[in-house]
Amino acid sequence: MSRGIFITLEGGEGAGKTTQIRMLATALQQQGYQVIVTREPGGTPEAEKIRDFLVKRDGGNWTPMAECLLLFAARQMHVEHLIKPALADGKIVISDRFADSTRAYQSFGHGLPLDTIEEINRLALGDFAPDLTFILDLPVPEGLARAGERLSAASSQEDRFERLGRDFHERLRQGFLTIARRDAERCRVIDATRGIEEIARDMLSQVQLDAQRKLA
Amino acid sequence: MSRGIFITLEGGEGAGKTTQIRMLATALQQQGYQVIVTREPGGTPEAEKIRDFLVKRDGGNWTPMAECLLLFAARQMHVEHLIKPALADGKIVISDRFADSTRAYQSFGHGLPLDTIEEINRLALGDFAPDLTFILDLPVPEGLARAGERLSAASSQEDRFERLGRDFHERLRQGFLTIARRDAERCRVIDATRGIEEIARDMLSQVQLDAQRKLA
Repeated sequence: MSRGIFITLEGGEGAGKTTQIRMLATALQQQGYQVIVTREPGGTPEAEKIRDFLVKRDGGNWTPMAECLLLFAARQMHVEHLIKPALADGKIVISDRFADSTRAYQSFGHGLPLDTIEEINRLALGDFAPDLTFILDLPVPEGLARAGERLSAASSQEDRFERLGRDFHERLRQGFLTIARRDAERCRVIDATRGIEEIARDMLSQVQLDAQRKLA
Repeated sequence: MSRGIFITLEGGEGAGKTTQIRMLATALQQQGYQVIVTREPGGTPEAEKIRDFLVKRDGGNWTPMAECLLLFAARQMHVEHLIKPALADGKIVISDRFADSTRAYQSFGHGLPLDTIEEINRLALGDFAPDLTFILDLPVPEGLARAGERLSAASSQEDRFERLGRDFHERLRQGFLTIARRDAERCRVIDATRGIEEIARDMLSQVQLDAQRKLA
């Protein structure tokens, strides 16, 4: 195997990304693939510090442009120090969020021009992009209800993204669906209202098709 | 007064920026100007966190590209939340370093393409730039000797930039001089081997000419 597969999971709050990543990684490992699970913002010690800024409550009052630059600083480290070396080793890398989240949150959500984000993406990452992106799609009320249960159960401090209001989350959902339409080759929209096991089987079969094609 | 003046001081280690900024600010205040002194990376609570990453010893192992993105994230906050509002109030803002330091350190020093930095500068700041930039120029051995005295006196932890080696500091000096040649209208090279008082008089007279022209 000369090069691995880079898979990203995207979507709004409560869509089930964490659960699905765990199930996908386990299933692929059972089939003999070497799998690395990571997340954004984060994935390297430096990038996790950026995560603390942006996700936790005490991060300060960043502008959407500054957020975008911070996210791509973290992402560039993540790509160079973790993702690319793992792919060069032939591993499958699964990341909980990647550049599509910046497109969705900072542009569709916070109003930064999408072209600006694409230019920063190109400057920071060149043409590096995921091989396969699952966009877990869920009606906003259902997603927020699920996220709310999780938060009250875990007393999580990482609630900044959850406190942005219903309209914001609607823009976010439409943003992810727009991204998927524009990049239909890479992005697969997953109906996340279905049962967990059904979603997992659907995603696994799509990864296997790609893996057979790519790692054959 | 409809708009203030944005002055930046640039240069390598030990060139005397801090001393000259203090003297310039005091002299301008004595003449009745309202003066804000600030610094980069930093100047806002959020941007000071970025400073901690990059300048202190425990900041981690950032790539030049990630450093550049972090610096412009901090700079964009600094410009939007501190510099532009002060200029709108008709104040004189003096910053210890600004975008020329990113050009010099990340491009001439660390090898990031200058065009990449200019593109990120344009995306983050539009056409915002200093009105007047003093580049304090000093032969590298003299600068490092002065910086070394200061560090051993202060036990400063902010020594990351000082530990980069003689060749790096030579590239940095030539980088600042190249920047000054390319943007001769904005940049004034100051011979920092002269006495402190003489340098201060030189800089003050240049600021006064600009101030008379601009704030008249």
